[in-house]
Amino acid sequence: MTPIKRRKITVVGSGFTGATSALMAAQKELGDIVLVDIPDNEDPTKGKALDMLEASPVQGFDAKIKGTSDYADTAGSDVVVITAGIPRKPGMSRDDLISTNAGIMKSVTKEIVKYSPDCFIIVLTNPVDAMSYAVFQEAGLPKNRVIGQSGVLDTARFRTFIAEELDVSVEDVQGFVLGGHGDDMVPMLRYSSVGGIPVQKLIPKDRLDSIVERTRKGGGEIVGLLKNGSAYYAPAAAIVQMVEAIVKDKKRILPTIAYLEGEYGYTDMYLGVPTIIGGNGIEKIFELDLLDEEREQLDKSADSVKNVMKSL
Amino acid sequence: MTPIKRRKITVVGSGFTGATSALMAAQKELGDIVLVDIPDNEDPTKGKALDMLEASPVQGFDAKIKGTSDYADTAGSDVVVITAGIPRKPGMSRDDLISTNAGIMKSVTKEIVKYSPDCFIIVLTNPVDAMSYAVFQEAGLPKNRVIGQSGVLDTARFRTFIAEELDVSVEDVQGFVLGGHGDDMVPMLRYSSVGGIPVQKLIPKDRLDSIVERTRKGGGEIVGLLKNGSAYYAPAAAIVQMVEAIVKDKKRILPTIAYLEGEYGYTDMYLGVPTIIGGNGIEKIFELDLLDEEREQLDKSADSVKNVMKSL
Amino acid sequence: MTPIKRRKITVVGSGFTGATSALMAAQKELGDIVLVDIPDNEDPTKGKALDMLEASPVQGFDAKIKGTSDYADTAGSDVVVITAGIPRKPGMSRDDLISTNAGIMKSVTKEIVKYSPDCFIIVLTNPVDAMSYAVFQEAGLPKNRVIGQSGVLDTARFRTFIAEELDVSVEDVQGFVLGGHGDDMVPMLRYSSVGGIPVQKLIPKDRLDSIVERTRKGGGEIVGLLKNGSAYYAPAAAIVQMVEAIVKDKKRILPTIAYLEGEYGYTDMYLGVPTIIGGNGIEKIFELDLLDEEREQLDKSADSVKNVMKSL
Amino acid sequence: MTPIKRRKITVVGSGFTGATSALMAAQKELGDIVLVDIPDNEDPTKGKALDMLEASPVQGFDAKIKGTSDYADTAGSDVVVITAGIPRKPGMSRDDLISTNAGIMKSVTKEIVKYSPDCFIIVLTNPVDAMSYAVFQEAGLPKNRVIGQSGVLDTARFRTFIAEELDVSVEDVQGFVLGGHGDDMVPMLRYSSVGGIPVQKLIPKDRLDSIVERTRKGGGEIVGLLKNGSAYYAPAAAIVQMVEAIVKDKKRILPTIAYLEGEYGYTDMYLGVPTIIGGNGIEKIFELDLLDEEREQLDKSADSVKNVMKSL
Repeated sequence: MTPIKRRKITVVGSGFTGATSALMAAQKELGDIVLVDIPDNEDPTKGKALDMLEASPVQGFDAKIKGTSDYADTAGSDVVVITAGIPRKPGMSRDDLISTNAGIMKSVTKEIVKYSPDCFIIVLTNPVDAMSYAVFQEAGLPKNRVIGQSGVLDTARFRTFIAEELDVSVEDVQGFVLGGHGDDMVPMLRYSSVGGIPVQKLIPKDRLDSIVERTRKGGGEIVGLLKNGSAYYAPAAAIVQMVEAIVKDKKRILPTIAYLEGEYGYTDMYLGVPTIIGGNGIEKIFELDLLDEEREQLDKSADSVKNVMKSL
Repeated sequence: MTPIKRRKITVVGSGFTGATSALMAAQKELGDIVLVDIPDNEDPTKGKALDMLEASPVQGFDAKIKGTSDYADTAGSDVVVITAGIPRKPGMSRDDLISTNAGIMKSVTKEIVKYSPDCFIIVLTNPVDAMSYAVFQEAGLPKNRVIGQSGVLDTARFRTFIAEELDVSVEDVQGFVLGGHGDDMVPMLRYSSVGGIPVQKLIPKDRLDSIVERTRKGGGEIVGLLKNGSAYYAPAAAIVQMVEAIVKDKKRILPTIAYLEGEYGYTDMYLGVPTIIGGNGIEKIFELDLLDEEREQLDKSADSVKNVMKSL
Repeated sequence: MTPIKRRKITVVGSGFTGATSALMAAQKELGDIVLVDIPDNEDPTKGKALDMLEASPVQGFDAKIKGTSDYADTAGSDVVVITAGIPRKPGMSRDDLISTNAGIMKSVTKEIVKYSPDCFIIVLTNPVDAMSYAVFQEAGLPKNRVIGQSGVLDTARFRTFIAEELDVSVEDVQGFVLGGHGDDMVPMLRYSSVGGIPVQKLIPKDRLDSIVERTRKGGGEIVGLLKNGSAYYAPAAAIVQMVEAIVKDKKRILPTIAYLEGEYGYTDMYLGVPTIIGGNGIEKIFELDLLDEEREQLDKSADSVKNVMKSL
Repeated sequence: MTPIKRRKITVVGSGFTGATSALMAAQKELGDIVLVDIPDNEDPTKGKALDMLEASPVQGFDAKIKGTSDYADTAGSDVVVITAGIPRKPGMSRDDLISTNAGIMKSVTKEIVKYSPDCFIIVLTNPVDAMSYAVFQEAGLPKNRVIGQSGVLDTARFRTFIAEELDVSVEDVQGFVLGGHGDDMVPMLRYSSVGGIPVQKLIPKDRLDSIVERTRKGGGEIVGLLKNGSAYYAPAAAIVQMVEAIVKDKKRILPTIAYLEGEYGYTDMYLGVPTIIGGNGIEKIFELDLLDEEREQLDKSADSVKNVMKSL
């Protein structure tokens, strides 16, 4: 008879996105949290972990939160989130990031699976499709256990702009995207709605086009404003929604970056598709009929991913 | 300089639905709660209010909860929920309820507006379209301040059955209904989706038909099982979602029973339509293009409401 | 590699307390819920379970909620709550309940452990000290896995009355009780405080005495008001707090009915004591120095439990 | 008949503490949020506000969040939080901050009351006792409407360390402090407890002394770890708990920095004391009997505040 144990969630990378993800996961009492970063960042990592732990009596959550540079502390994690990597700077294309970040993915993944051989891994590092692939290759885990994030964030931005346009609750706006992150995003407007009413019936085409365009450039908009960093609140919220779907086996229907074996005509690559995400990671991929226009955009998005993958 | 005061919410009727509504509103800290019933029920009303107040230290909410039979205690309420009325029994048609409940609506409304002349009123008592009209006539309040509930509940049942059918999170199922409650409900399947994907692409027609039929009979299904009463958990949740939309000015897009002045071709009657509900009550009614089939069903639903209204 | 599964919680008895416990556990997404009652109550049990499931899309929680009379449905539960038993009626002493309820405890426990041999059991049925003992004897589980509830409820009532007396937030009132339920409760006023300030410094002795007396009679006050039943909102909240402490391994410090082996000088009996409750059930019993007066009251309380146990 | 409006909360200063406060207030749906900073920081302020707004569809909260450098946007705020000021750097004493920050308090307060003449102001900027006084003098608001934060944070740290020491839930640890922030803090150990049990009965004196010492140096510990900044998660949580107490009129009993007119023997100064904080700001100050040792420490703390005030 074994006691009931809390779930354990590791966040790799204690930058803004990683730290905010740790906070949000703890606020929801999804489990105990380990925030891990390189030895050079050990002290700030510990400082952030301690600071958020000190928020727990006030916010009313119970979670151990540990900052560390030692992967032994991550042993037995249920879910590991990878936010490590060099950040996108103003003017930098996502492709510039690839070689450095792929190397980071490999070394990080090696450590993760050494200590948590049964975990689920969620990848946030950009370019996320290729980075998810790199992690998948290194991890040796089944495909349902390595998942990339981009669609939840893209959809969140789209929903925010639609809610603002109509001055309605964000809770009642549904969005839907396929394909890659940012510029490669394939918005499925006919599957996007407000309280069930298709957005195309509520918002004129030109306004909608401009909202789609703003969504595509959503990461860049924040980078441009912050000047010295990239978005972290919405990305962290997106990550934590995926973690919650897994640890609570919620079977959420979310757009995730999944490993494809023939779905939508693509094989041996990661791409953003609609999925069921639950206690077994990606439990199902929905294959939708696409309009010609959507198919073209998705192909373009997939080509873009493949190009990046070549540099791996 | 006046202090900030909590919102005040009155629930008329301390039966299961009324009491559960009071509990759920208190759990969300939407405001202080007054639960009011007739003098003959004063003690049980006080008992329920005290019992739920005694749950507050454990559940961690602050709300005064008062049981009473004296409407003076309701003075200055922001929102008043009417659940009073005789309940539907097994085999009883909703129309049988009308004469008794219309009388109750009038006497209750007189007391409500005497003490809370600026309030919003949400009506749950069946047949709810006609009862909302009776309350509206008696209250002398602007039309945006008298609102009936049925669509949130019908949609909740529809969403539950869809989620169960597909074994997915209820959070990702969107439903949409027009028209009256129960048998008169007009389901808008083309506006219903799962994670944005139209339900018709995910569920075969015969299964979907049977889910729609089950939704229509959803109230009766519970009545048949309970044997000795009708549903109260889901109805209370529905009511409280509307109260929350008002007191937090959330501008939710919810199907509500609204007073129509020409919308959808109907005038001077209450009918279930898609609305924005926020800090000014019903802030907008969406008029959608209907298919012939939907139009027919809506007309039938409206006829049914008119028939009931004749007995008023 | 096994998928992550939701916790599973069974509530035995679908009366008001059982049903409200099921609702509150589902609202907190503590796990999937099975509500089980005798075959004669199967339909109402199913009706309540379905009704609360239909509340889930509105309240935003994911939990399967199943009503049943077949214990096979409870298989593999992590925590089982026993609320079954005949209720206390106005004028009835708790001792009158014992023979009937002890029989119910035995038959229910047999079924529980048959299908969930590793579970934790929380007992609410009165007289709760003796009923916990009856369950413990039948279950064959380690002592840390069979726990009675009374102190959380008694404390909640005490906290409610103190908060009302001072017009302050219930969140900042701490209470502390030892011993049995109701009349046998031993209030530890010197360990009760408001925002850390001892209650005895804030409330005059006569008022405090009357609050203690009201707390002792708290169950009877509700019974007297309801006329036709006993409290269920606060008892359900208390139960669910204990369930949450276990399934989230929170290590809460709560007064629970624990099996004693020498603590406070008692052996082979259940009595209300301060404990740590977490993922291994009762993880620790705190032994406090008692004043002579407190010791006398606790002895009286223990005698009362022993008397009841004789009738077992 | 006026519609119900959301509360409005302004956070002055979009640094880490200000931004995190804005996020936490939005997560709790306490109202719409304005995050205001100097024109030089306008873009990053807008970026952070937009980023957290984009988290709202995922986290499920409705709140407008606006970043700005124009105080006109703050008009009609219910509560204004001041986090502006230069931060404490490693090795810097809090006294070094005073002249710069006092000037910032004055100019900021002038703008606040110009646009929100009826607001409540909560001050976080260090040295907080003196800064609260500076704000009070400039604002011309009644004393109950200008409040400093330090005790909630100090207590949170104390509670964290106690919970860690005993491996129990943070929810069950109560702490209590008087006097100034950090080194000037007067811990009231006899009013601190774990599940009601005095900490002195659970933790040996030497360990307790070291926990008190760690609490006193709690801010410095984080500064030392982060190297390049100071704590913001726990401070933000503390601030938001005070905002919540006001906008929900919770009447929490919290240690706050209050204006004294004779309480504890001090006049015309701000000092940390136990208070009731609710819809009218500081609604009551509790005057406690102090032991000689506590009185000495409080006098020392007050002297320290007076010294700082001389430099104002």
